[in-house]
Amino acid sequence: MAIPKDVRIDLSPEDIPKRWYNLAADIGELKPPLNPGTREPAKPEDFDPIFCKEIIRQEGSTERYVDIPEEVRDSLIYLNRPAPLQRAYRLEKHLKTPAKIFYKREDMSPLGSHKGNTALAQAYYNAEAGVHTLTTETGAGQWGTALAMVSNLFDIDTTVFMVKGSYIAKPLRKTIINTYGATIHASPSAQTEFGRKILKEHPETSGSLGIAISEACEVAAKDENTCYSLGSVLNHVMLHQSVIGLETMQQLEIAEVEPDYVIACAGGGSNFAGLTFPMIGEKIRGRGFENTEFIAVEPDAAPSLTKGEFKYDFGDTAGFTPLLMMYTLGSEFVPPSIHAGGLRYHGMSPLVSAAYDMDMVSARSYDQTETFAAGLLMARTEGIIPAPESCHALKAAIDVALECKERNEEKSIVFGLSGHGLLDLYGYEQYLEGTLPSSAKL
Amino acid sequence: MAIPKDVRIDLSPEDIPKRWYNLAADIGELKPPLNPGTREPAKPEDFDPIFCKEIIRQEGSTERYVDIPEEVRDSLIYLNRPAPLQRAYRLEKHLKTPAKIFYKREDMSPLGSHKGNTALAQAYYNAEAGVHTLTTETGAGQWGTALAMVSNLFDIDTTVFMVKGSYIAKPLRKTIINTYGATIHASPSAQTEFGRKILKEHPETSGSLGIAISEACEVAAKDENTCYSLGSVLNHVMLHQSVIGLETMQQLEIAEVEPDYVIACAGGGSNFAGLTFPMIGEKIRGRGFENTEFIAVEPDAAPSLTKGEFKYDFGDTAGFTPLLMMYTLGSEFVPPSIHAGGLRYHGMSPLVSAAYDMDMVSARSYDQTETFAAGLLMARTEGIIPAPESCHALKAAIDVALECKERNEEKSIVFGLSGHGLLDLYGYEQYLEGTLPSSAKL
Repeated sequence: MAIPKDVRIDLSPEDIPKRWYNLAADIGELKPPLNPGTREPAKPEDFDPIFCKEIIRQEGSTERYVDIPEEVRDSLIYLNRPAPLQRAYRLEKHLKTPAKIFYKREDMSPLGSHKGNTALAQAYYNAEAGVHTLTTETGAGQWGTALAMVSNLFDIDTTVFMVKGSYIAKPLRKTIINTYGATIHASPSAQTEFGRKILKEHPETSGSLGIAISEACEVAAKDENTCYSLGSVLNHVMLHQSVIGLETMQQLEIAEVEPDYVIACAGGGSNFAGLTFPMIGEKIRGRGFENTEFIAVEPDAAPSLTKGEFKYDFGDTAGFTPLLMMYTLGSEFVPPSIHAGGLRYHGMSPLVSAAYDMDMVSARSYDQTETFAAGLLMARTEGIIPAPESCHALKAAIDVALECKERNEEKSIVFGLSGHGLLDLYGYEQYLEGTLPSSAKL
Repeated sequence: MAIPKDVRIDLSPEDIPKRWYNLAADIGELKPPLNPGTREPAKPEDFDPIFCKEIIRQEGSTERYVDIPEEVRDSLIYLNRPAPLQRAYRLEKHLKTPAKIFYKREDMSPLGSHKGNTALAQAYYNAEAGVHTLTTETGAGQWGTALAMVSNLFDIDTTVFMVKGSYIAKPLRKTIINTYGATIHASPSAQTEFGRKILKEHPETSGSLGIAISEACEVAAKDENTCYSLGSVLNHVMLHQSVIGLETMQQLEIAEVEPDYVIACAGGGSNFAGLTFPMIGEKIRGRGFENTEFIAVEPDAAPSLTKGEFKYDFGDTAGFTPLLMMYTLGSEFVPPSIHAGGLRYHGMSPLVSAAYDMDMVSARSYDQTETFAAGLLMARTEGIIPAPESCHALKAAIDVALECKERNEEKSIVFGLSGHGLLDLYGYEQYLEGTLPSSAKL
């Protein structure tokens, strides 16, 4: 088939957004985080030991737009922004759907995912504040990789606590993080009091995200020039990721499309928020997107929106973090080890949760076997092997496209391709060999 | 440091070249390939059993330009072409060099390397000729991956014979190739007469590129609708790769730069030819680039230009292919197993060899340990982890930039970043751990 010329909508570096969009300005009053000790609303200074001033300010900000510092904007070039919006002509043809399917390509980053967008901003603000080291935790490794890479751009050091189970299972992530010059410890580690305590009590533990967060925060809290950095869930992260949606809106204007569906995967919520919030903001303010449905796609294995409860809960497993008002499966819930490591979270961004609670967002969940089937189809039609997380958004986009086919409706669908799968091929291997377990069996 | 706006020079899809450039038009008469049986110049029909007509025509063509079929040009979009030309400001700053360093980014392809450029063209011509299956061999796996991916674009099947040693050592490549829907066999295989013979005689062999070529050709020769596809060395491959250099020339014009040095790695020669040939052509014809030095960079482990001899030799180890006039270390030479698998070849493209023989090209070689050190520096300054092959070009570019620093010369350097290293991280791991062997010790 001849490939139409508008298959890819590119923007040029000058089109990188000049300001981030903040949904907190338009979504109504959010319930504040609570101090885990007092259970009173957390004060900005509660965060002083672990975050720098500007990050704390952004976390609580209700300004609609926040200017992107020139240094951050220029550095987005290193993440290969702007990212293309591509039309999935070959996938459409395969599905025989009258629907138009577009995908926003975060796989183009040298990091292979969208995580760098906020890592960059956080590294910048911390460097500006005189912080010399950032600590963080990483599960599957994408976030640790992103922070390790961007830290170099602002001459800052990064220490990553990687959940020991993943550290052993995914040695390539350690290699990448080290190649970028960051320090990485399997968590629990002997580097922290908390880690040593756990190691003493449970010498054989494979660790958890909760333990890793605690270690990263302990190191940050103990040193004035060290801060902690988080890759999802919090409001400032959603803010920084809004470049995804702001670019997409420019591209949709070029394509002369107002989408009927905008779909993204949701673990902590940062890819979903990044793609959809700028459009949801327009919808709330009556400036467009009135007929657009925003769909968050979860794994069956961690269905916080579809099966969780909207309540105050801890961000971590250990109960050290402030309590956040969010959809949650309970902070004690440990998601089974699906391949989409970035979606294995018990809770959901408070902003995404609020948007879901006010019915601005709907949600679906899928078993990982169906999502890898969708990934394989994407590889064979569009030539891109999606990350296991992205396969969730893709699967929903395919389903919606097939629903459009049944109803013979020429709807427009945009989904977020949050990253490529070249560093997470084991799931594909299992799928191809017929040994990929269904989420229900994990 | 503030990042200048011209850090990345993008082109738009309309700027994808409309015709390929063929150095055979300008380099003077080439010595023809010889039939391995008769040792007489091979006739076009000698290639009939394994190649389709248009590929054979292009292999012998001396037209300066060959139109790129619209379907191929449109499909280059799926390889994310045009590829950016990026200025390595942060690397320059680190080196404290007055030289400008640019790099042409073939890492942006979803395949992670430049190999798709010719795979696409070959798949197209074969599909047009009614061929339903392409066979090929792959060593490190990049070529097999490329052909597997692009075959889907033209509804053609691909069968890959992967050297058994690599097949076992690099299971991820098999996963990718299967994900793209191609068939892959560890070579020697039971699929061919030749494979069965080898397996009987040497059941424990880990295979070789020579054996894999023989198997792929045997399958192609036996079926009328099956053809063979090669990823480097031959003239038509160099032709298809010229999109790299043709794009780069447009980008250099935008940057208002005529480079003093253009540098690329050279194994079979396709990345080097792709980047440099269009410029070398201009130089020969007195239309520019008169002061540009073109540098081919080899591994110490397979130094065909720097240590080889210019003579007729077989393209494969077994002596089945036509004899090619090229720089070679002898077809019996088996390069040690360095990480840059794409540079492990005993010979060199006849066109690159001819250009080297007439002093249009110079050559350097490096030990793999120095090249990984360069790769690490690239990761930490520019944010990209280069493929082991690309690290060779990078290392030479760094050396040239340091020479410029010594002489305080504001020269311009362009090097080819042939791909990213995310699928070849083991070399980085060894380098970081201090266990990477020097080429001399392999």
